[in-house]
Amino acid sequence: MRVVVYGGKGALGSTLVNHFKTKSWWVCSIDLSENPEADVNVVVKGANLQEQAANVNSEIEKSGIGAEKFDAIFCVAGGWAGGDAANKDFVKNTDLMMKQSIWTSVISANVAAHHLKEGGVLTLAGAEPCLEGTSFMIGYGLSKAAVHQLTASLAQSGGGLPTGAVVQCILPKTLDTPMNRKFMANADFTTWTPMSYITEMFTKWAEDPSSRHPNGALVKILTIDSITTETVV
Amino acid sequence: MRVVVYGGKGALGSTLVNHFKTKSWWVCSIDLSENPEADVNVVVKGANLQEQAANVNSEIEKSGIGAEKFDAIFCVAGGWAGGDAANKDFVKNTDLMMKQSIWTSVISANVAAHHLKEGGVLTLAGAEPCLEGTSFMIGYGLSKAAVHQLTASLAQSGGGLPTGAVVQCILPKTLDTPMNRKFMANADFTTWTPMSYITEMFTKWAEDPSSRHPNGALVKILTIDSITTETVV
Repeated sequence: MRVVVYGGKGALGSTLVNHFKTKSWWVCSIDLSENPEADVNVVVKGANLQEQAANVNSEIEKSGIGAEKFDAIFCVAGGWAGGDAANKDFVKNTDLMMKQSIWTSVISANVAAHHLKEGGVLTLAGAEPCLEGTSFMIGYGLSKAAVHQLTASLAQSGGGLPTGAVVQCILPKTLDTPMNRKFMANADFTTWTPMSYITEMFTKWAEDPSSRHPNGALVKILTIDSITTETVV
Repeated sequence: MRVVVYGGKGALGSTLVNHFKTKSWWVCSIDLSENPEADVNVVVKGANLQEQAANVNSEIEKSGIGAEKFDAIFCVAGGWAGGDAANKDFVKNTDLMMKQSIWTSVISANVAAHHLKEGGVLTLAGAEPCLEGTSFMIGYGLSKAAVHQLTASLAQSGGGLPTGAVVQCILPKTLDTPMNRKFMANADFTTWTPMSYITEMFTKWAEDPSSRHPNGALVKILTIDSITTETVV
């Protein structure tokens, strides 16, 4: 398998890279810094969306890694910042959320359109709470809502993905990451989704097309009493 | 009445400014260039969202117009560009759509949080087709979807708007503007919404709070056989 992890240096991303390497898959990490475990690193440069996209595309061309198509592209880049419209950091945080969620998803879609195999899979990262209004984290909410709608567009015929390729958008609630453990030390961890659940789900989706949800699915991933389930919205 | 038109130099925006001036309202236009009919112009400067927001906020402070609160803020900025994920202009057009729709809406929300009167009204510009996937205009679709979700967040208690203020997001299909007449000369104009409908609706919403839809409404504006109706999604 030849796969791309966008956000391959983050908590979930580096877990994915590590897992795929234990399976001897060829892995390309795209992120702001290198993940030494990956076979190839594309380090994103550029001050705006167009520069970043041009940089990622030209790195893929230059390195020659795009000559052979990818089986899967997993976009797990993201971040979190809160604030309502009156918050002093409202615009700054919204700007950051757009960069971390929308820009990365748009570039992933663009890379998928040109370099994903026919019948391959692209995953994007949405968020369950953003199916509704999210007054205490407005920038985060609108960015994830954009990713949800992008998923619907890409799944339509004429969306630009290769023939037979599908897009799946995962909507977890809280992932059990070291940072979340640190900042929410008193939370109920039995409602948090283990990263191993996501890595196994993604592995299955890459290896077995029949395991995927319908094209364009928004896949809610909920954990209750340490049991995780997938539900298509 | 003291009102702000964000996008006051565009087709719909200048129609609004003109209409409000016939009613002797005080009008501030925010746009990339001046509208001479407006009482005050804020000309947006800045290469990114944070700079533009800081510029608009500081112009409002400097000019002293923010000392008295606004009755209404109408954000009608926007534009259109198409393309699927494989289109050569996909990233460029998506970038433009985010600037024209998301940035302007976010800055409007920010201005509303600080300068709208209690019980005032903020309108944002959504789009009916973007309630679903929009494969042939992906950047436009995800940007408008972000505006729809922003509306839901702002309407929640704790969204940051002043007490009693409401947000309404209009979802027209095609407005009967000179540019649309030019570029779609053979379309069926009986399905296009006249700009006068929007100006009258906004006038009513500003003057009479009881004429507004529920807070956070996504208001579909559909014209069939030259008859226009409003439906809350």
